[in-house]
Amino acid sequence: MTSSLAESVRSAISQIVGPGAAALHTPHFGGNELAYLKECIDSTFVSSVGKFVDRFEAELAAYTGAKHAVAVVNGTAALQVALGLAGVRAGDEVLVPTMTFVATANAVAYCGATPHFTDSEERTLGMDPRALREHLQGAATIRGGQCVNRETGRVIRALVPMHTFGHIVDIDGLLSVARDFNLTLVEDAAESLGSTAGDRHAGTFGLLATLSFNGNKVVTTGGGGAILTNDQALAREAKHLTTTAKVPHRWEYTHDRIGYNYRLPNVNAALGCAQLEQLPSFLDAKRRLFERYRAAFAGMSGLRLVEEPAGTRSNYWLQTIVLDASVAAQRDEVLAATNDAGLMTRPAWTLMHKLQPYLGSPRMELSVAESLEQRVINLPSSAHLEMART
Amino acid sequence: MTSSLAESVRSAISQIVGPGAAALHTPHFGGNELAYLKECIDSTFVSSVGKFVDRFEAELAAYTGAKHAVAVVNGTAALQVALGLAGVRAGDEVLVPTMTFVATANAVAYCGATPHFTDSEERTLGMDPRALREHLQGAATIRGGQCVNRETGRVIRALVPMHTFGHIVDIDGLLSVARDFNLTLVEDAAESLGSTAGDRHAGTFGLLATLSFNGNKVVTTGGGGAILTNDQALAREAKHLTTTAKVPHRWEYTHDRIGYNYRLPNVNAALGCAQLEQLPSFLDAKRRLFERYRAAFAGMSGLRLVEEPAGTRSNYWLQTIVLDASVAAQRDEVLAATNDAGLMTRPAWTLMHKLQPYLGSPRMELSVAESLEQRVINLPSSAHLEMART
Repeated sequence: MTSSLAESVRSAISQIVGPGAAALHTPHFGGNELAYLKECIDSTFVSSVGKFVDRFEAELAAYTGAKHAVAVVNGTAALQVALGLAGVRAGDEVLVPTMTFVATANAVAYCGATPHFTDSEERTLGMDPRALREHLQGAATIRGGQCVNRETGRVIRALVPMHTFGHIVDIDGLLSVARDFNLTLVEDAAESLGSTAGDRHAGTFGLLATLSFNGNKVVTTGGGGAILTNDQALAREAKHLTTTAKVPHRWEYTHDRIGYNYRLPNVNAALGCAQLEQLPSFLDAKRRLFERYRAAFAGMSGLRLVEEPAGTRSNYWLQTIVLDASVAAQRDEVLAATNDAGLMTRPAWTLMHKLQPYLGSPRMELSVAESLEQRVINLPSSAHLEMART
Repeated sequence: MTSSLAESVRSAISQIVGPGAAALHTPHFGGNELAYLKECIDSTFVSSVGKFVDRFEAELAAYTGAKHAVAVVNGTAALQVALGLAGVRAGDEVLVPTMTFVATANAVAYCGATPHFTDSEERTLGMDPRALREHLQGAATIRGGQCVNRETGRVIRALVPMHTFGHIVDIDGLLSVARDFNLTLVEDAAESLGSTAGDRHAGTFGLLATLSFNGNKVVTTGGGGAILTNDQALAREAKHLTTTAKVPHRWEYTHDRIGYNYRLPNVNAALGCAQLEQLPSFLDAKRRLFERYRAAFAGMSGLRLVEEPAGTRSNYWLQTIVLDASVAAQRDEVLAATNDAGLMTRPAWTLMHKLQPYLGSPRMELSVAESLEQRVINLPSSAHLEMART
C-alpha cells in the first residue's frame, strides 16, 4: 500500500510536469544545434581541429569569468587532469565528498592517489568546512609545509568540493580550511554551470575547476567537459596534456610528456556552442520550475524542497526534496510510487565510502551524508518542462 | 636548392591530387551523416543513451567478424581498457612497437605498466616476429608460467602489434611468439579498419583488439574507438568498465569497480553509422588511389611505394613511400618541398624509445625501426581525392 507521503509527492510532481511521463533531466535543442553540426559536416572539421572548440572555450571563459577554459572529452577526464596539475601524485590523499557522483573519487584513483572522504552539511548538501576543519585538526598534521595524515602517513594534497545538484558549497569556509592546512582547492563544478556565489561563478574559486557537459547536464555536448583556471601556465599545460603532449612542429610527431587523448571533438563543441547560446533561457526556466515545485510542496509535511543557499544563486540543475528523518524509511516507497507512475526520481548516489573499491579509503565521521543518503530524492528537472509552458 | 628527388616526389603527388593543396587525410561525408545527426537532435538522445551506439557496435562486429564490439570515446581509451582486460597490471611490461603513434605506449603507462619496445620489419613496417623471438630467447625466461624479463625482473604480460598505416603485421608469426612465451596478444588495429589477412579482419586475431575513429581515420566519429573481442565475458566486462562500472538498478547509483567514463556519445556513434555505410566505397577509392600512386612512382629510383604484404589486403589508410637508405638524408628536403607546395606529407612518428617519458624503458635492438624512421614518408591519402574523380 502506498503511503500518503508517497502519494502526495507523486501528485505534486504530476501537477508540475503535467500528464504523462517525465525523465529526470533531458536536454533541450531549440537553437542552432543542427546548423552548427551542418557546418562541421560541410567543412569536414568534426574531430580534433575546428573552430567550434576554440569558440566553445572562449565562451565558457567569458561566461564563467575564468581567464581560461580548456574543453575536454568529459568531466571525469577534466578532473583527472586538473588534479594532476594541482600536484596530486601517486601515494597522495585527496579530500572529496562521500556524497558525489563516482567520477570525483575515480579521478583521484586515476592519479594513483587515494580519496579521503568528507561529510556533507544539511544546508548546502556539499562539503562541511566546520566538520572538515575539526577532522583535520585531529587526523592531520603539517610537516615540512605539507598536510600529512597522521594515521596513514600520506600527504593530503588537495581538497575537491563538489557543488551538489548545482547548489554552491560553503566555498569561503572551504578556502579557509585549504589555506590553513596547505591544501590545493580544485572545484568539481560538473553540476553547477550557471551557479554563482556573490558575483563569482562556480569554478572560479579554486586553483582549477572542472565542468561537465554530459547529456544530463544544464547544457550538453553529448559528452564533454572543461577545465577552468585563472592561471595561464596551468591552462597551457592543461591544453598540452589533453592533446597528447605533442610538441608543435610542422611534421614531426614528438611528445614530451605522457599526455592524454582528451581533446573535445569539434562536432561535440559545435553542440556546446549552440547550447551555451540558450543557457540563460534554460536557467530562467529551471528557476521558474523551482518556483512551481515550491508552491506544489508548500505546507507538505515530512520534507523540504532544497533552495539555493543564502548569498548564492543556483542553476537548479536537479530539483531535490529532503525527507525528514522521521519519514526516511518511506524513501523507497516514494521512489517506487513516482517511478511506477513514469515520473523519474532517484536517490542520492550510493555514498563513495560504501562502494567496493573505496571500502578501505580513509574518511572522517560521515553521519550527515549517511543521513542525507536516506532522505534525498531528485525530481524531474528538465528546463523544457517549463519552456513548453511559455 | 631542392634536390631532384624532392622535386620528383612533389611532382608525382601533384599529378595524383591535381592542382591545389592536399591534406594528409580528411574525412568524406557523402552519406547519411546529417540525417542521423538530425535524428539525435530531434530525439534529444545525444549522450550516453541512444540507438546509434548499439547499432554502431552491432555493425562493427558484423563488418569485422568479431563477435563483440564495444564503442568507446577514442582508440587510446579502448587500448587502455583492453590491456587491463588482458591482465596487464601495475609493474608489468608490455611489448609494443617503437614505431607507432604515442597512444600505444601511453595506454601501457596508464595501466601502471612499462612499454618494452620492439623492432619493425621492412616489409610490413610492423613488429618483426623473428627478431622479437630472438630477443625474448635472450632477454626473457619463463618462470611459474609467466614470461619474465631477466634484467628488470618484471613480468612481460602482453604483446601489442599495430597494423602500421593499415598494413597487416605478420600476425601468424606474432601469434606463435605469443604462444611460446605465454604472452597475451592485443591488436592495436587503430589504423586498419577494412584490412584483412586471408579471410579474417584486422582485430580478430588477438584476445582483444582496438579500433580508432579519430578524424584522420578511414571512418570517423569525430573522436571515437572500439574494443573488439570474441570472448563474451570480456565484452561484458569491457562494457561495464567503460560505463563507470555502474551496477544496473532502477534508481540506485552503485559502482562495483573503478570504472571509466569512456562510453561513446550517441551523437558520435550516429556519425559512425553513416560513415560505416560508405566504408566499402572509401576502401575502393583508397585502393584506386594506391594504383595511381603506383603508376606515378613507377620507375622512380631512390624509393619504394609501400604495398600490402602478400596474403593480406590493406585498407591503404595512409599511402607511404620508403626512401632508399642511400637517399635517407634527403627526407627533410622531400618533406619541405611537398609541404611548401601545400601537399601535406609527414615522416613516421618519432620512435617511442626516443620520447622523453620513455627514455628509460626496456627495448630490444631497434635498428630497422631506426632506419625506417629516417626513410618513411606518408602521402596525401584521403578517399575523396579519388571519389571526386568518379
